[in-house]
Amino acid sequence: MTSMPQTPLLDQVSWPADLRNLEDRDLPQLARELRDEMIDAVSKTGGHLGAGLGVVELTIAIHKVFNTPDDRLIFDVGHQCYPHKILTGRRERIRTLRQESGLSGFTKRAESEYDPFGAAHSSTSISAGLGMAVAADLSGKPRNVIAVIGDGAMSAGMAYEALNNAGALDARLIVILNDNDMSIAPPTGAMSAYLARLASGRSYMGFREFGKKLTAYLGKNVDRAITRAVEHARGYVTGGTMFEEMGFYHIGPIDGHSFEHLLPVLRNVRDNAKGPVLIHVVTQKGKGYAPAEAAADKYHGVNKFDVITGAQAKAKPNAPSYTSVFADALVQEAALDEKIVGITAAMPSGTGLDKLQNLYPARTFDVGIAEQHAVTFAAGLAAEGYRPFCALYSTFLQRGYDQVVHDVAIQGLPVRFPIDRAGFVGADGPTHAGSFDTGFLASLPGFVVMAAADEAELKHMVRTAAAYDDGPISFRYPRGEGVGVELPERGEILAIGKGRVMKQGAKVALLSFGTRLADCLLAAEDLDAAGLSTTVADSRFAKPLDHDLIRQLARHHEIVVTVEEGAVGGFGSQVMHFLANEGLLDTGLKIRSLVLPDLWMDQAKPEVMYAKAGLDRAGIVKTVFSALGRGVQVGAAG
Amino acid sequence: MTSMPQTPLLDQVSWPADLRNLEDRDLPQLARELRDEMIDAVSKTGGHLGAGLGVVELTIAIHKVFNTPDDRLIFDVGHQCYPHKILTGRRERIRTLRQESGLSGFTKRAESEYDPFGAAHSSTSISAGLGMAVAADLSGKPRNVIAVIGDGAMSAGMAYEALNNAGALDARLIVILNDNDMSIAPPTGAMSAYLARLASGRSYMGFREFGKKLTAYLGKNVDRAITRAVEHARGYVTGGTMFEEMGFYHIGPIDGHSFEHLLPVLRNVRDNAKGPVLIHVVTQKGKGYAPAEAAADKYHGVNKFDVITGAQAKAKPNAPSYTSVFADALVQEAALDEKIVGITAAMPSGTGLDKLQNLYPARTFDVGIAEQHAVTFAAGLAAEGYRPFCALYSTFLQRGYDQVVHDVAIQGLPVRFPIDRAGFVGADGPTHAGSFDTGFLASLPGFVVMAAADEAELKHMVRTAAAYDDGPISFRYPRGEGVGVELPERGEILAIGKGRVMKQGAKVALLSFGTRLADCLLAAEDLDAAGLSTTVADSRFAKPLDHDLIRQLARHHEIVVTVEEGAVGGFGSQVMHFLANEGLLDTGLKIRSLVLPDLWMDQAKPEVMYAKAGLDRAGIVKTVFSALGRGVQVGAAG
Repeated sequence: MTSMPQTPLLDQVSWPADLRNLEDRDLPQLARELRDEMIDAVSKTGGHLGAGLGVVELTIAIHKVFNTPDDRLIFDVGHQCYPHKILTGRRERIRTLRQESGLSGFTKRAESEYDPFGAAHSSTSISAGLGMAVAADLSGKPRNVIAVIGDGAMSAGMAYEALNNAGALDARLIVILNDNDMSIAPPTGAMSAYLARLASGRSYMGFREFGKKLTAYLGKNVDRAITRAVEHARGYVTGGTMFEEMGFYHIGPIDGHSFEHLLPVLRNVRDNAKGPVLIHVVTQKGKGYAPAEAAADKYHGVNKFDVITGAQAKAKPNAPSYTSVFADALVQEAALDEKIVGITAAMPSGTGLDKLQNLYPARTFDVGIAEQHAVTFAAGLAAEGYRPFCALYSTFLQRGYDQVVHDVAIQGLPVRFPIDRAGFVGADGPTHAGSFDTGFLASLPGFVVMAAADEAELKHMVRTAAAYDDGPISFRYPRGEGVGVELPERGEILAIGKGRVMKQGAKVALLSFGTRLADCLLAAEDLDAAGLSTTVADSRFAKPLDHDLIRQLARHHEIVVTVEEGAVGGFGSQVMHFLANEGLLDTGLKIRSLVLPDLWMDQAKPEVMYAKAGLDRAGIVKTVFSALGRGVQVGAAG
Repeated sequence: MTSMPQTPLLDQVSWPADLRNLEDRDLPQLARELRDEMIDAVSKTGGHLGAGLGVVELTIAIHKVFNTPDDRLIFDVGHQCYPHKILTGRRERIRTLRQESGLSGFTKRAESEYDPFGAAHSSTSISAGLGMAVAADLSGKPRNVIAVIGDGAMSAGMAYEALNNAGALDARLIVILNDNDMSIAPPTGAMSAYLARLASGRSYMGFREFGKKLTAYLGKNVDRAITRAVEHARGYVTGGTMFEEMGFYHIGPIDGHSFEHLLPVLRNVRDNAKGPVLIHVVTQKGKGYAPAEAAADKYHGVNKFDVITGAQAKAKPNAPSYTSVFADALVQEAALDEKIVGITAAMPSGTGLDKLQNLYPARTFDVGIAEQHAVTFAAGLAAEGYRPFCALYSTFLQRGYDQVVHDVAIQGLPVRFPIDRAGFVGADGPTHAGSFDTGFLASLPGFVVMAAADEAELKHMVRTAAAYDDGPISFRYPRGEGVGVELPERGEILAIGKGRVMKQGAKVALLSFGTRLADCLLAAEDLDAAGLSTTVADSRFAKPLDHDLIRQLARHHEIVVTVEEGAVGGFGSQVMHFLANEGLLDTGLKIRSLVLPDLWMDQAKPEVMYAKAGLDRAGIVKTVFSALGRGVQVGAAG
């Protein structure tokens, strides 16, 4: 354990108003203390470290210069907001980050008026900020709206759509491009600070005008060949950065760790900007903490760690993670089939596709934060006979939904969708939960929708998907580690639309889709013990359904309970729709459908969330008892 | 009626191979004949006219220069593909366009090998083309991949994501930017043709190199001030068009109606291009047909028309369209509440938001083809206390689904979603059908999901949505005209989560969500006549459900049938989920859920589609009879 950091100046700053009372010259010390505080806090909670360390000075400078919360400050993604939280009245709770009942790991409207727009998914800040800037204009209440967005987030089409619209609307919006790409050397020194001030001040306009006059001037003074070349250049190579072409004033790059750069630029923009402005700020991810600076990923997301050494606590895995089982199985299949290719949207390690990339770089495509493109790019590959695995998290697949419908499903193209992080995700909370995929995919004609009950099943499904060329196919699996079952040498090809009976009973049927199967089996023990002979089946498929299996369950049991880690409208709805329209519910069969509860559940440990959702062993037993009029005997069943 | 056009040259061209046997000098005549043929065909079928007329020469030139179908030609959106269809073996069927069992109004893989990737939604072609180009590289089978995309489609983030990825991959992809924005004057004449050839040929590389050397050259010959200005220009105003900054060679603009421009440029690119190339082609929408050229919308989408006069057949409306009822109601509410704002994604007239725009231009925002941005922009406005109506078609709302989840629903922001074109859309076919919205919205916690049963209901829902500040709310309504009910002076505020009983019976309950209510009422007449006393209820809400109403229906009827114009997973699933988990199905209540069939239905008249889907009067009666073991007595019920 380390002692708490000494933070005499930070101790005086609970709110941005306190910060505004400091002198500019005090800010570097404040930055040091804020960094120490943040490192200490995250060492105890785990979380996103590198991103926050990179924006310590920027966060201070923004709150110093702008009148937050009346001026609106929006952090894109929001994982860089820990320094912001410390400075906006949340320091006392900062060591509850990402814990149950604690602070969110992202910005969150419900948490503070200093978080005017919540985030977690990338690239939303410019759109939201533009809406706010327009609202300020309409209301006649001038205020500044500042969106802080990373360079990675600029690869998303959504950011482009917003820039495109902002330029056209000419609204007073300040976009701060936080560029921490290591490949860009940060400009430093007085000259670039001077240029930054020049560019951001009134004289910037003058410079632009001067630039426009250059060609005319040249025409009088240099020979015809050059004149013509310049004219060509105007036609083919029009002036202006991309941002300027989209109607923004573009300032920078400036050093995002230098208050001498940041403060005058921000003040100039605050006092002089009329239309949309983009300030290009270069920062270093992990700045100011040596272990983070030295790490390849700059401590992007960390477990609890030792502040002195930087050594992270390692969770002791009982079983390989679903992600790694998927990745290994994909690599295994890819070795045997050169038509298999992998696509990820800026998540090579999160999806495990880095393993494929290492072995088959030419067949692995990281398209950036660009899920729409990822899906249709995969469709293009499938149209040419390739076998693309488009690996996304459930929550990010939502970004490519129209492409899944329009480019993949309607055309019946065999794109494979491995869906990671399906279900609860723990500390990341509701923005990252994978709740809706089964519903929005199983509603699509011709889609094959699978869920893995354990890591061996996942391996089968990777192979099944690889072998299935007749149309789109998906398989979902959760975050975290498997249940520890033995893995087969190689996955088997599953029969499409066929489930499996795990345990035969006579009165109660539990029909599971996905990893809740383990709790179904445990619940069956309790039910059997209570004299309720229980069948447990793994549906494997939400689409096509195993009609024979479901008919058997319906005809030979008093009650059928569907169990899934997904919202209403998914697997259970498919089952009930089939049962209803077949007339299998007409006979008084009891049917219950356990799904995720109809609310946005805040972060907590998954076990806690399952219990709250009634999707654990006890919840399943309780549902059956209640349906059969046995009263609640959960205590006995535990 | 006009006689068929004389097309002696076109008569010899059934396939691109025939076209390749013609001389370059024959192509202008072929273009004239192709235009005549297309105008005549569309005059008989209706459809998209202006877009196809604009790309007659471009289409001919591509098929002349490239080896389609082995070279892949992808039309973005696809509504400009009629000339392409005529030239690729589909001339005989061209007068079946958009008719039942006829040609699709878009490109379609199932229709021809010359349509390597289908379309209908905008901005997908670069992604698909890049996938194909990568596939060609991986296969070691060099081929050209050409994506033809309009300037409007370039506003979509998806196109940007694809450009961004294409530039990085350096794949051999040809993007033809078909620029028919009337605000850009087309360059004409020998000089621009020369420049285009220069730019596209090998010498283009030389020119680029020359451009790079310009600054160095200037440094030696002009004074220091200019040198410095040029250096600044390199820093702040980096060279290159947007496309060049994204790694493309950028050629153009060239005249898209001149074979003298098109052929040499395309041949140069075919023979010399290595990485991604963007050819900027300027065309005129409606080119070559005087009534189209003179019309403001350039005959974008037309009914049948008289070829000589251009006069379009007008459908005789029996009632105002849902779109216009929505638009009038919104304007009415907006007049009373200055916080109401409207957002459309490049569909001001399609959504009716042009009416709001005319009266309140400052409160109406057309953000371009940019649904992701549209939704989050609306969320930003809602966060500031505005009452945004984000008006999209059901099928295009899919493009903003993650934003609906992440930026609107999780934050509980009161964005209003008017959902036009919900259900079947007739001639536009499956890509434009609005099938999935109820499912993917009603699964979201806190969402209010409505459907209008008729145009008066729609008016109520506009007002209800305007008045509802507690969270997100949507209301869906179909394409086409209302049923002719009397419209109230002003809509009423509906009680959230309350349905209405239209007709009380005792044995059969029909529970409708949306405009199938009319057929439910007709079916009830038949059922009553057959001795089956029938209740008809309009649920109005899929979420929150009217639990009291549904309990009543369940307890006091032998059968409950839910009826909706949407896919499985939506309203019926919500109802069954409630009934099941309340135990209301335990007693042998018969439940049936009528939804859209689980297949992609091709274009046809909506009445035909309803009948096929079993969602019309006869289908509803049949379902009830069948469930009650009455056998099929549809004949008697008709």
